[in-house]
Amino acid sequence: MFRAMFSTPEATARTSDDAWLQAMLDFESALAAAQASAGIVPAEAAADIAAHCRAEEFDSAFLGERAVASATPVIALVKDLTASVGPGSRPHVHRGATSQDVLDTAAALITRDVLELVLADLRAAAGECARLADEHRDTPLVARSLLQQALPTTFGLRCAGWLTALDEAIATLRRVPLAVQFGGAAGTLASLGPSGPEVLGDLAARLRLAEPVLPWHTDRTRIAELAGALGTASGAMGKIALDVELHAQTEVGELSEGKPGGSSAMPHKQNPATSVLISAATRRAPGLVATLLSAMPQAYERAAGAWQSEWEPLVELLRLTAAAAHRTRELLADLRVHPDRMAANLELTRGLVLAENVAGHLSDALGRTEAQDLVAELCRRTVERGSSLRAELLAEPRVRDVLTEDEIIAATSPADYLGAASVFIDRALESHTRWEKR
Amino acid sequence: MFRAMFSTPEATARTSDDAWLQAMLDFESALAAAQASAGIVPAEAAADIAAHCRAEEFDSAFLGERAVASATPVIALVKDLTASVGPGSRPHVHRGATSQDVLDTAAALITRDVLELVLADLRAAAGECARLADEHRDTPLVARSLLQQALPTTFGLRCAGWLTALDEAIATLRRVPLAVQFGGAAGTLASLGPSGPEVLGDLAARLRLAEPVLPWHTDRTRIAELAGALGTASGAMGKIALDVELHAQTEVGELSEGKPGGSSAMPHKQNPATSVLISAATRRAPGLVATLLSAMPQAYERAAGAWQSEWEPLVELLRLTAAAAHRTRELLADLRVHPDRMAANLELTRGLVLAENVAGHLSDALGRTEAQDLVAELCRRTVERGSSLRAELLAEPRVRDVLTEDEIIAATSPADYLGAASVFIDRALESHTRWEKR
Amino acid sequence: MFRAMFSTPEATARTSDDAWLQAMLDFESALAAAQASAGIVPAEAAADIAAHCRAEEFDSAFLGERAVASATPVIALVKDLTASVGPGSRPHVHRGATSQDVLDTAAALITRDVLELVLADLRAAAGECARLADEHRDTPLVARSLLQQALPTTFGLRCAGWLTALDEAIATLRRVPLAVQFGGAAGTLASLGPSGPEVLGDLAARLRLAEPVLPWHTDRTRIAELAGALGTASGAMGKIALDVELHAQTEVGELSEGKPGGSSAMPHKQNPATSVLISAATRRAPGLVATLLSAMPQAYERAAGAWQSEWEPLVELLRLTAAAAHRTRELLADLRVHPDRMAANLELTRGLVLAENVAGHLSDALGRTEAQDLVAELCRRTVERGSSLRAELLAEPRVRDVLTEDEIIAATSPADYLGAASVFIDRALESHTRWEKR
Amino acid sequence: MFRAMFSTPEATARTSDDAWLQAMLDFESALAAAQASAGIVPAEAAADIAAHCRAEEFDSAFLGERAVASATPVIALVKDLTASVGPGSRPHVHRGATSQDVLDTAAALITRDVLELVLADLRAAAGECARLADEHRDTPLVARSLLQQALPTTFGLRCAGWLTALDEAIATLRRVPLAVQFGGAAGTLASLGPSGPEVLGDLAARLRLAEPVLPWHTDRTRIAELAGALGTASGAMGKIALDVELHAQTEVGELSEGKPGGSSAMPHKQNPATSVLISAATRRAPGLVATLLSAMPQAYERAAGAWQSEWEPLVELLRLTAAAAHRTRELLADLRVHPDRMAANLELTRGLVLAENVAGHLSDALGRTEAQDLVAELCRRTVERGSSLRAELLAEPRVRDVLTEDEIIAATSPADYLGAASVFIDRALESHTRWEKR
Repeated sequence: MFRAMFSTPEATARTSDDAWLQAMLDFESALAAAQASAGIVPAEAAADIAAHCRAEEFDSAFLGERAVASATPVIALVKDLTASVGPGSRPHVHRGATSQDVLDTAAALITRDVLELVLADLRAAAGECARLADEHRDTPLVARSLLQQALPTTFGLRCAGWLTALDEAIATLRRVPLAVQFGGAAGTLASLGPSGPEVLGDLAARLRLAEPVLPWHTDRTRIAELAGALGTASGAMGKIALDVELHAQTEVGELSEGKPGGSSAMPHKQNPATSVLISAATRRAPGLVATLLSAMPQAYERAAGAWQSEWEPLVELLRLTAAAAHRTRELLADLRVHPDRMAANLELTRGLVLAENVAGHLSDALGRTEAQDLVAELCRRTVERGSSLRAELLAEPRVRDVLTEDEIIAATSPADYLGAASVFIDRALESHTRWEKR
Repeated sequence: MFRAMFSTPEATARTSDDAWLQAMLDFESALAAAQASAGIVPAEAAADIAAHCRAEEFDSAFLGERAVASATPVIALVKDLTASVGPGSRPHVHRGATSQDVLDTAAALITRDVLELVLADLRAAAGECARLADEHRDTPLVARSLLQQALPTTFGLRCAGWLTALDEAIATLRRVPLAVQFGGAAGTLASLGPSGPEVLGDLAARLRLAEPVLPWHTDRTRIAELAGALGTASGAMGKIALDVELHAQTEVGELSEGKPGGSSAMPHKQNPATSVLISAATRRAPGLVATLLSAMPQAYERAAGAWQSEWEPLVELLRLTAAAAHRTRELLADLRVHPDRMAANLELTRGLVLAENVAGHLSDALGRTEAQDLVAELCRRTVERGSSLRAELLAEPRVRDVLTEDEIIAATSPADYLGAASVFIDRALESHTRWEKR
Repeated sequence: MFRAMFSTPEATARTSDDAWLQAMLDFESALAAAQASAGIVPAEAAADIAAHCRAEEFDSAFLGERAVASATPVIALVKDLTASVGPGSRPHVHRGATSQDVLDTAAALITRDVLELVLADLRAAAGECARLADEHRDTPLVARSLLQQALPTTFGLRCAGWLTALDEAIATLRRVPLAVQFGGAAGTLASLGPSGPEVLGDLAARLRLAEPVLPWHTDRTRIAELAGALGTASGAMGKIALDVELHAQTEVGELSEGKPGGSSAMPHKQNPATSVLISAATRRAPGLVATLLSAMPQAYERAAGAWQSEWEPLVELLRLTAAAAHRTRELLADLRVHPDRMAANLELTRGLVLAENVAGHLSDALGRTEAQDLVAELCRRTVERGSSLRAELLAEPRVRDVLTEDEIIAATSPADYLGAASVFIDRALESHTRWEKR
Repeated sequence: MFRAMFSTPEATARTSDDAWLQAMLDFESALAAAQASAGIVPAEAAADIAAHCRAEEFDSAFLGERAVASATPVIALVKDLTASVGPGSRPHVHRGATSQDVLDTAAALITRDVLELVLADLRAAAGECARLADEHRDTPLVARSLLQQALPTTFGLRCAGWLTALDEAIATLRRVPLAVQFGGAAGTLASLGPSGPEVLGDLAARLRLAEPVLPWHTDRTRIAELAGALGTASGAMGKIALDVELHAQTEVGELSEGKPGGSSAMPHKQNPATSVLISAATRRAPGLVATLLSAMPQAYERAAGAWQSEWEPLVELLRLTAAAAHRTRELLADLRVHPDRMAANLELTRGLVLAENVAGHLSDALGRTEAQDLVAELCRRTVERGSSLRAELLAEPRVRDVLTEDEIIAATSPADYLGAASVFIDRALESHTRWEKR
């Protein structure tokens, strides 16, 4: 019931018990094939094993039950797989491997499959940001700091900021090292004799995973980097969702979701349901990352508890990131932008958000300090009188002495004070294009 | 496949989609009944609603799918429930309630049901600790600090320490406040008119949950306290599992599990599989607690993301604690204690762990400082010669002048230097009995 | 530079190196006194030791430097203290104690001193909430869910919610167990002979700390409960700060801080600086709580790393909570409430937030379903025409048939739809009074 | 007092208030210089500002106090700096910058300075691992899984595993992006007119920081990646410390620290104090990383609380990692390896750890299954009789039929069953050399 909100059908399928089972069997199958290549397992045995490495032949629930006794599902799986192959193939099942070889490799395969979804969605989301940045490069918006209106910016620049964060998150995820695990109980591949390293390399190639320098049973830097990259991506998406929730506030109204959640009793509500699900999913990443980092110090050649604590949090983190990425893509693709409300909100302070600009325009003639003092005085007057800064400027002789009416109108127009917003958007779009090409 | 290792069948059942669905329906049913009592819903409508509040009539997977659009499964559930009752009852379904009323109350019901399991297992585990503390009150063991042998203690005292921690964790869990949630969209129960508080009280009574002072939609202190209590219990169990793993090391061999995990290729291995599962489960609690605490600042009357981020972590934390409690109970009930190895390990330093005691015995005659210096000298000699402290004492005239052979033998016997170990065990057992009676 | 923002002068003083040093010396002094009472240390030695247990006689920086070699500052401290007393007193310094006895007891004393500050500030903050709840029991405010306007409530009810959360947090903090630690290296008090438990009890009494059932060197439930209580209090304060930040938004303007942070270049800004510091401080609690919970599994009789990892995070958590409590008190005491903006915002949807109420009023005459359909139709019309729900109701014959103009005006007034808000405020105030009396 | 244990003098200096102050002033100085280059500030003003940008001219404690009012120390600093320069320079201080520009850039500079220390220590530590891996490539050690003896490995391979983890952590840290921050209040550099991007680029060059595509005020991917990299490095070091603590156990005795902590009362203790400090420091990283990741969703153009929550945790994380790196280097440089104890522990199971190897040797003649069954039988016999596997093999006719005495002796020698240990060590050393060259 909750799962659907915090995963996607694809991510659920790719992290299901069946997916794990198949990934574990893929390891066993590729291992036998690699050992056949190396001449230490008969080719027929390898073929027999491969033929039985199909998830649908096994009962994952029953494997799970038996996993409790040994704190690993692999022992039962190997037993069942061995029983399923011909007698002559049995000695060749799982040769030289240890449980962690199977599970770590399966985790790498599962991760690859989920990251494929995540990256596709993040790239599409980044593409939407690029589109929005370009479309809204001239849409004025008030920048807010500490939730207070500050100065003008453009909605395009905001989207450019989302874009560069997503691009960076994508680059980080693409660097995540996914390696095969194969070392045997002691990490020496002792039972393979001299063929160990050759089999390791071939196994990696067959599974299209990187070949590690060493077995990495208790070197969890790979998991840590993966966790960090997923946490970074989550945070980048959480930022977008938070912004949408804030912009969609009834009192702000600058953005709304394409398909907001509704309420029969409260017809005016436009719940930012997609953003809320993104926020909820991404808020859970830091705790999961911490759990995975806490598990890094793993004793000797195989940890007692730390390694085993990684399994579910890793899956959870993958699933949540996939869900967030999918929804971020949807959110951005369907986002409704309300430039009228953006413009109206820019007027809320009746020009005070442009005080800095006005002072700049007056500085040449009056000197910087005097200009700032004069503007501060006019701002106070604006507030007291409930007028507008423009009106006060137009009415003030000291201003009229140095600025024309047109100049005053320009200086109190948001579009006059956007600085490098458009340049920055171009830089973000160019950078995005470079990322995309990699 | 992993779930079985990190839950129990009972905990899985009590946190399943069906369990959630039934808890949500129990809210709706009790709400209609309470409103019927208050005279604002016809009794027949309440009865009709109650008759349809059965989980098996609903499709939790389909509810989940529809939950995505509104970031809550409640809207779809209410729709389906409304459709299932008679036309005259329809206006009375979910009257005055908001989605969070349903979900928070369901969470309280689910929590109560899982805590029942947790507490039963923790109490049984504490009972096993009490038994072991009493049985092994005179079983010498070397105390270790920073994993180095320090001084003698007893295994009974260690178990007494486990016991007091579990007793404290149980007391904390029993204090956890579980309250009904009912406030309507604004927390005012406005649509009930003046009947609101009466219905709230009656609803609480019907569901056997506490009646809160106020709706607590964005006051998450209850969830925080629950999380803290589960985290505390997890830590107390993690300590026991860590101790067992360490005592069960091949080189230490003082404890072993009743049903260790084995390995066909490594016949000597006695894997502490149950302890490993406890460690793995309890290591995940701190990250989940942090996620729940991070979710406490919830905006206005209903959070956008923070509340929704609680759902799965709370369930996960409950399930992991239940699994750990169940396994801790089993671990302790089946624990095999090896006093011979404890005695042998106490001899490993050939008496050096009793140096402090020997110095105490010599202090009366020689003065404290001189006694300590002499013992330090004899300890160095023991190490250099590979002899034993006892032998060096017996051979040293300055010692023989003030202590008899019997006194030296006693002073170098662990049983002579156990201080208040037995008194402390009694205190722990008495305290446990007091806790049990509450 | 940062410290001032994330602590208070008092909390900084009470957690300073000097405070720790004095707390450690208080342990040593009380220990000697308790042992003198038990007749195992000469009274003169105890007096001599007490006379030198003054922080100003020691160099905490130099102790720190020497702490690195042994992973504890206690060894160097005991050495310096021993050197400072008369020769006859030297053998009686730190008798029977281990480093962890000193540090854990000092931590309990430091914690008590900081909690005194925290509780005073939280109580004052709760008092301010009670005042605000009462003052604003009739100040209409729009309730917001998912940051969308929902239904009317009152600002008093919001404050009542803050109040009950603070009251609960205070109660939790007051329950935190603070016990003396004294067990010697093995937790047996072996070197004290039969006097151990007596000295333990007397020591606890002298330091006004609870006497534990057992030494708790590796039973960290006390630390976990403290951490959980501080985390809960942080979360309750974080909620208040978040609400103030949101209400203080330029576009919302319903609250402002008494002494907002300003900006010369942006004269209109009213930065909610105090809320920001509360948010920043309380956001750091969950990670620190997780660190402390992760440290619970401590090996054997003394942990190698886990215990030592507690020291700074505990101090940090105390300091942050103290800073947050102090600022929450200030924030609430100086809070500026703008009922005019609250009223204006309630009008933003031109009556739609009262649709549920209007439907209720029409239900008696039209039936619930028909009433809801009619209101939904009028809401749509309100939005399309940019009119108000009230105007549409007044203009609609089907409504006028069953409601008078006065009834329509009432039904579209927020004050008509506040349900139990005032009752709930009374409940919260009564509950607060009961808490206060404990 | 604690700080010395959880930092180093260098790291403390580089993260001190003075260091922050200087870093902030370096920003102001470079900013004025860049603006002078761009012709928007007079060269004399820039020189005047530069001359006053010296930390010793400011009072960081007083800045801190004043920071409370505005939730940033920058406003007071800019005020003091402005007051310190000549009247003509005053309008040119901090031109176009916002507080976050100063603090984020200062954080990047501080980070760079600390990472320099961290990387130097990590590289030296990796060098020590490489040395140990090479020196001990033939030192047999028993591999342990779940803390149970498993199969033989070499101590050199263990060190190679430490090495590859450190190499990976170093590579990750070196990739951390450190960019200047400069965008002004809205991120548009509006007050600089068209010169904004030019000044940004020049400023970055002057401070030797990367030039970002955009101002990154609320794009915290950089901070997240830094946090993740520090967390990964911490975990890699925590693994080494844990291994040393375990190997140094009294009952294991395979490693000891070069300068262990001692105990006067317990002369035999060899406390792994350095490892304990590394463990304690690195255990705190995950919680800090989680705090930093949780702070990623930052509202609009400047966060209210989330950004401010980063400051101290980032410093803490830097300091802890620096301390851990420094101590890991020392630990490894001084590590005492005890091959005799490694050999003795390999004998503890009297040959059972070689059962897999023996079965392999018998497989050719007997077939794999029969060989395994026979070995299992002999293992049971070994345990029952308290003999050795070698003795049982020599005494068993079915074995003697197919293996010679020399073959049996070899098959029961750990050196016979090390597989690819040495090859893996070479791979790790080669990979290390490649990393080093980058």
